[in-house]
Amino acid sequence: MQVVLGPNRYGKAETRLVRVVRDGDVHHLKDVNVSTSLSGEMEQVHLTGDNAAVLPTDTQKNTVYAFAKKHGLRQIEDFALLLAAHFVDTQPTIHHARVEIEEYLWRRLPERGHSFVRDGTEVRTCLVHHDRDGRSTVVSGLKDLVVLNSTGSEFHGFLQDGYTTLRPTTDRVLATAVTARWRHARPPADYGPSHARVRQDLLDAFAGTHSLSLQQTLYAMGERALTGGPGLCEIRFAMPNRHHFLVDLAPFGLDNDNEVYYAADRPYGLIEGSVLREDAPDAGFAWE
Amino acid sequence: MQVVLGPNRYGKAETRLVRVVRDGDVHHLKDVNVSTSLSGEMEQVHLTGDNAAVLPTDTQKNTVYAFAKKHGLRQIEDFALLLAAHFVDTQPTIHHARVEIEEYLWRRLPERGHSFVRDGTEVRTCLVHHDRDGRSTVVSGLKDLVVLNSTGSEFHGFLQDGYTTLRPTTDRVLATAVTARWRHARPPADYGPSHARVRQDLLDAFAGTHSLSLQQTLYAMGERALTGGPGLCEIRFAMPNRHHFLVDLAPFGLDNDNEVYYAADRPYGLIEGSVLREDAPDAGFAWE
Amino acid sequence: MQVVLGPNRYGKAETRLVRVVRDGDVHHLKDVNVSTSLSGEMEQVHLTGDNAAVLPTDTQKNTVYAFAKKHGLRQIEDFALLLAAHFVDTQPTIHHARVEIEEYLWRRLPERGHSFVRDGTEVRTCLVHHDRDGRSTVVSGLKDLVVLNSTGSEFHGFLQDGYTTLRPTTDRVLATAVTARWRHARPPADYGPSHARVRQDLLDAFAGTHSLSLQQTLYAMGERALTGGPGLCEIRFAMPNRHHFLVDLAPFGLDNDNEVYYAADRPYGLIEGSVLREDAPDAGFAWE
Amino acid sequence: MQVVLGPNRYGKAETRLVRVVRDGDVHHLKDVNVSTSLSGEMEQVHLTGDNAAVLPTDTQKNTVYAFAKKHGLRQIEDFALLLAAHFVDTQPTIHHARVEIEEYLWRRLPERGHSFVRDGTEVRTCLVHHDRDGRSTVVSGLKDLVVLNSTGSEFHGFLQDGYTTLRPTTDRVLATAVTARWRHARPPADYGPSHARVRQDLLDAFAGTHSLSLQQTLYAMGERALTGGPGLCEIRFAMPNRHHFLVDLAPFGLDNDNEVYYAADRPYGLIEGSVLREDAPDAGFAWE
Repeated sequence: MQVVLGPNRYGKAETRLVRVVRDGDVHHLKDVNVSTSLSGEMEQVHLTGDNAAVLPTDTQKNTVYAFAKKHGLRQIEDFALLLAAHFVDTQPTIHHARVEIEEYLWRRLPERGHSFVRDGTEVRTCLVHHDRDGRSTVVSGLKDLVVLNSTGSEFHGFLQDGYTTLRPTTDRVLATAVTARWRHARPPADYGPSHARVRQDLLDAFAGTHSLSLQQTLYAMGERALTGGPGLCEIRFAMPNRHHFLVDLAPFGLDNDNEVYYAADRPYGLIEGSVLREDAPDAGFAWE
Repeated sequence: MQVVLGPNRYGKAETRLVRVVRDGDVHHLKDVNVSTSLSGEMEQVHLTGDNAAVLPTDTQKNTVYAFAKKHGLRQIEDFALLLAAHFVDTQPTIHHARVEIEEYLWRRLPERGHSFVRDGTEVRTCLVHHDRDGRSTVVSGLKDLVVLNSTGSEFHGFLQDGYTTLRPTTDRVLATAVTARWRHARPPADYGPSHARVRQDLLDAFAGTHSLSLQQTLYAMGERALTGGPGLCEIRFAMPNRHHFLVDLAPFGLDNDNEVYYAADRPYGLIEGSVLREDAPDAGFAWE
Repeated sequence: MQVVLGPNRYGKAETRLVRVVRDGDVHHLKDVNVSTSLSGEMEQVHLTGDNAAVLPTDTQKNTVYAFAKKHGLRQIEDFALLLAAHFVDTQPTIHHARVEIEEYLWRRLPERGHSFVRDGTEVRTCLVHHDRDGRSTVVSGLKDLVVLNSTGSEFHGFLQDGYTTLRPTTDRVLATAVTARWRHARPPADYGPSHARVRQDLLDAFAGTHSLSLQQTLYAMGERALTGGPGLCEIRFAMPNRHHFLVDLAPFGLDNDNEVYYAADRPYGLIEGSVLREDAPDAGFAWE
Repeated sequence: MQVVLGPNRYGKAETRLVRVVRDGDVHHLKDVNVSTSLSGEMEQVHLTGDNAAVLPTDTQKNTVYAFAKKHGLRQIEDFALLLAAHFVDTQPTIHHARVEIEEYLWRRLPERGHSFVRDGTEVRTCLVHHDRDGRSTVVSGLKDLVVLNSTGSEFHGFLQDGYTTLRPTTDRVLATAVTARWRHARPPADYGPSHARVRQDLLDAFAGTHSLSLQQTLYAMGERALTGGPGLCEIRFAMPNRHHFLVDLAPFGLDNDNEVYYAADRPYGLIEGSVLREDAPDAGFAWE
């Protein structure tokens, strides 16, 4: 039997970088987690351990820090593109680079120039690819945006089989932690305002949709993100249904008119879906 | 050899409760995690498995939900006191109750009555005791309040021995996740505003202290909390020093003038300390 | 602009199931975590919230429990196949089912019939697909198999650029947490022995390979798994390089001849790769 | 109002250390996580930021690594004692040292000299104190020892009140993750065999006790540990009741004769208790 090497990549994951920019007494903070991953002429390192084509993951980490100094770090998408292009353009054995960045958000304290407090559980994300044919792709996104509607959500009219015990409801709590990732038809002038706009559209659609199912809410959020401003051609979601079960208080002689809930951990519903423009260009390796 | 039963307690940990109160179209949300723990005449259950003195942890859980309906849930300290007193007052075999509550914070979306987004990593906490002699204690607190000063922090003049390699610095990043717990000399009229006041004082002191050590910052925070408003007699802190190490960019021909940092995970400094009024009454079992 | 629904699926994630089988006084334990995910005629639920085609995730959970009773649960791959086929075969609106199972391992205590202790951090996994055209795929695997070689690992001869500071080494610690997933050319008679054989081959190859790079070790493990027994046609790995850095003890007048290491958390190398038979059949949706 | 500094300590938490000892081709591995904490003349550092009495946490970390080289690392209790005494004995401003160590267990692969696999979720622990009056205390322990009895456990005869809905049972699954910590009346000749003996006694008592309540099992485990061998005078437990709820399969026309369980996450019972010799000497600061 003949055995061969299949698809592979290697890199440095989770390089934690904080950059401080001083604008007089006012400081600006960027707090990111960078994962780089390279592929190319990697047969020999796998077959014989010959590292001649391998740029060490330690060097990738150093490059992340050095680039934050040399080139600055404003929008994570731009920083990721810079890194990805660098690896491919400077090392002939590297044919493809993948860079993923998480950004943690901080809020400057009022009337303080250099004091900050972490702002929410939410994380801004991006995933960038660049190959030696000069093709680049950018996926922007966010995760752990935790939202809840305390009414305005129903669930009924579903399929029933011999294993169905769930009763329909016309008023329930709907809660989720949104993971959303999107790509632009063409790059926006600035990824910052584009991100803020999409995020706001997602919140507006989540809050503004009278929901008959979490899928309907997901689609409404995607539609709003695509039509609420210029540029997006596709958006993908993963939304766990963080169940809030109404507690049965009847044994204690109490009503429970949608007031007291048990917030469950596991199991949970998990809704995944994508919304795209009919004319969305091919994604290539963007999502990989 | 004679073997005996020592101190013991049992209870239901982490009962997750969400309560929604509808004020017309405007909803109010409380999202808490309640842990109850009871002790008393528990010799027999340990020695022979006779459960006659045991109020099941399942019943404790039910009580949490039923009380949220019957009595409402405004300030976690009041709800914890109510629960603790209930267990001790209604079961002769239960001599002491301990109730710990975490509260997760949500922010209502602007112009939305019933849509919420999780507000930060920070958690509000309380720890309450009540015994059959009618003694009650209340500890209020918060945890995971993540803060960072990007300048205004020094560290030098420390002890040196044969294992010291650290170099002194006059400008570093100071970051921590504050856990603070405090008790009042006498109960405040309302635990809500008291908590908000202490939290703000902690932030003000963290941001406003030019720090020569994290201990100095801790003490300044405690002093401010004790003197910034009425009522506190003691505050205790646990503050990990979330190290941000300046990356050495010299090998790449680059300066690094307090701009690019590596945010480390482990190991980390851990500073624990308390600040109290000289005339603080005895804490009893408050902190246990 | 026309917006359309793209690929989507929904299901119940992380249904925790423990099954006890009594063979006289000797009990057998299966401890699993089942995630089911369905897709099919889901346009209406997304566009209008009409749930007529939706089998609730709650029903999926019930089915998992009922099937564990009705059909038993021996090998996770067989149980997953049974579930996947059931959803597709009984609901015309469901065209495709994906079932993922994690199994946690327990060891019966010696000379005890019904007492068990959790056996390691390692998790056995499977991922199964079934569609209405009758196509089924099975991926078996494991994760969190944590292994370490305290010698027999080198790293040198790598690319150097202006950001390289790493020094070559001819003796280092090599540690990783193996995630491996594989598919068979044709189904084995019994997935249990097949899993045990592959696991042993992975350990043997990890331990028996004098390693010039983690990639070389990965390939050797894959090759051994494919050639060490019948049936596998492809195996995929994700192996974080859990760095153990030699501590510089020179400032304290001490040598450190590969004796004292700092076990780092982040960043870490991440090596991903696959090994396959040249004649491996097309994987279809097996890995999705 | 006069505000004063209360109890305080500071140190370096979670220094991750792996030590390899080469005995010819056979290697020995120790994998530990060391947390040191010092207290003493710390008024000035809190009040003015004067660090003259402060041994930096970075130095503490260095000391851990250097000591692993200079003195070796066999039993974690002995290593902790050595560290604690060092800090107090060499720095007049340090009056008290607290050292906590976790040890992660590895198993050497059969017939391999230097290849290891992580052995279970279980962690060995110790907590050591030393002060400048020469008093030392040692607490040994373990945590995350996950055990399950699939029968031989009952729960009935408990208190009932208006919030009780739990039904009594004469056959249930009993599962927990044992945290146990103990102290010796006098130090054992070797902490290694003592630990192994206690661990085995805990397993034997857990498996061998027909349980009417988790408290009864806890007490039996403590009694066995105290009487099963020489030296222990006190043992403390924290044991979460990892509930396994029998799934109601009646809606699907199926019996469930203690066969199919739902393993729940939260809430969970939490049983804490201690067992001690009647003549146990005062614990001093041992448990703090």
